[in-house]
Amino acid sequence: MKEKLTLIKVGGKIVEESDSLERLLKDFAAIPGAKVLVHGGGRSATRLAEQLGIESKMVNGRRVTDAQTLQIVTMVYGGLVNKSIVAGLQAHGINALGLTGADMDVIRSVIRPVKEVDYGFVGDVKRVDGKRLKQLIDSDVVPVMAPLTHDGAGHILNTNADTIAGETAKALAEYYDVTLVYCFEKKGVLWDETNDDSVISHITEDSFVKLVADGIVQGGMIPKLENAFEAINAGVGEVIITSSTNISGSQGTHIKK
Amino acid sequence: MKEKLTLIKVGGKIVEESDSLERLLKDFAAIPGAKVLVHGGGRSATRLAEQLGIESKMVNGRRVTDAQTLQIVTMVYGGLVNKSIVAGLQAHGINALGLTGADMDVIRSVIRPVKEVDYGFVGDVKRVDGKRLKQLIDSDVVPVMAPLTHDGAGHILNTNADTIAGETAKALAEYYDVTLVYCFEKKGVLWDETNDDSVISHITEDSFVKLVADGIVQGGMIPKLENAFEAINAGVGEVIITSSTNISGSQGTHIKK
Repeated sequence: MKEKLTLIKVGGKIVEESDSLERLLKDFAAIPGAKVLVHGGGRSATRLAEQLGIESKMVNGRRVTDAQTLQIVTMVYGGLVNKSIVAGLQAHGINALGLTGADMDVIRSVIRPVKEVDYGFVGDVKRVDGKRLKQLIDSDVVPVMAPLTHDGAGHILNTNADTIAGETAKALAEYYDVTLVYCFEKKGVLWDETNDDSVISHITEDSFVKLVADGIVQGGMIPKLENAFEAINAGVGEVIITSSTNISGSQGTHIKK
Repeated sequence: MKEKLTLIKVGGKIVEESDSLERLLKDFAAIPGAKVLVHGGGRSATRLAEQLGIESKMVNGRRVTDAQTLQIVTMVYGGLVNKSIVAGLQAHGINALGLTGADMDVIRSVIRPVKEVDYGFVGDVKRVDGKRLKQLIDSDVVPVMAPLTHDGAGHILNTNADTIAGETAKALAEYYDVTLVYCFEKKGVLWDETNDDSVISHITEDSFVKLVADGIVQGGMIPKLENAFEAINAGVGEVIITSSTNISGSQGTHIKK
């Protein structure tokens, strides 16, 4: 039987406010066994861009990344946010190591082809080096991954943190029994959008089809769940969608085959 | 006999201009055997501070680091400069890994005590984990170290890059025959400050005393050389002071016992 590994993805908000960051660090430190943290940082990037008089342009929720914006996200994701988390985890006795995809070549990507939208310096993940991550994890290191990758030709590329979490979970599934936890602002996928406590505790591929047909799951939650099933079909044991105040996932939505 | 390791320290200027950075990456990639790169980034930090309307305050050549300035250096050193070098080295086939002292707890420091000057969030190095760095180097990873450390209590601290280079060289001297190369704007220590080609090719502890007595070595070069001899007395094989366009050190000042 494979060793258990928990991969937690947290958005920008939780890591950008000192109270919620402190809680996250404590909760994350308490998770037993092998673990990985993937973080965002979009709000801080937008704030720094504002301070520098650079407009943040979003299309379909994704940041259009010109050369100046790439510098900003490299500073904020790879520097400020990543190192705050790493130093904070060290204080909790966790031997954290901050990584972008360029570090030890752990995530290689290709610049997104221009179709309707030119996203600029945005990378689509090509491969994650699960073996290299395993070596680190086996020596008690906890990878803390920023949403940045590289193309192997010297360019950093801005990369969606959900995608990094999903692709990393898949790559690690070869070696571990992976639980992938996506944290967001709600407690989970809801039966009733107006009732924050109406969490759907379990979703399977069959029940997902029905939930979509019945109009209960809709909008941006559909691709999120499709990604979850893609991860599961690629070997990830379980995906949990939950709130960032419940990263153990006990109260969230559990997604299985 | 111990394996040879080359530790190169480069200042901010060379890594902050794309032409000189490209040359550095190429030269560094060509160095045979085990190696480590330590970089600065002060000019970029000063520029970002200016753009954000924050005054850069220097005392004795050291940056006074208040909370805002700490955020800036964390972004610039740990993010922008470090990741540019890492991605660039990957393109040259070097498996680089960017590190601050917080990453894998490789460099622990203490906040500098307030005496005549309150430097703020500035760290004095307490210990470097040479064993952990050796594990990385033995698995063909090349550490690229930013001038940031941590106190183990969750705080990143701004730390002089020359000091990081010296302390890291000493810690690695237990495992390797270390050559420590300090790059700066001149070709080496000069016989005649007005003649850039008058490089003193070798300095020993005895000749150093004479060079100081004769007024040939003076000013800021005295502590630089004192640090070099301190490293040598702590087991570092050789220290070279040279220009960043000659990182192999062949034409610089060679400092031995």
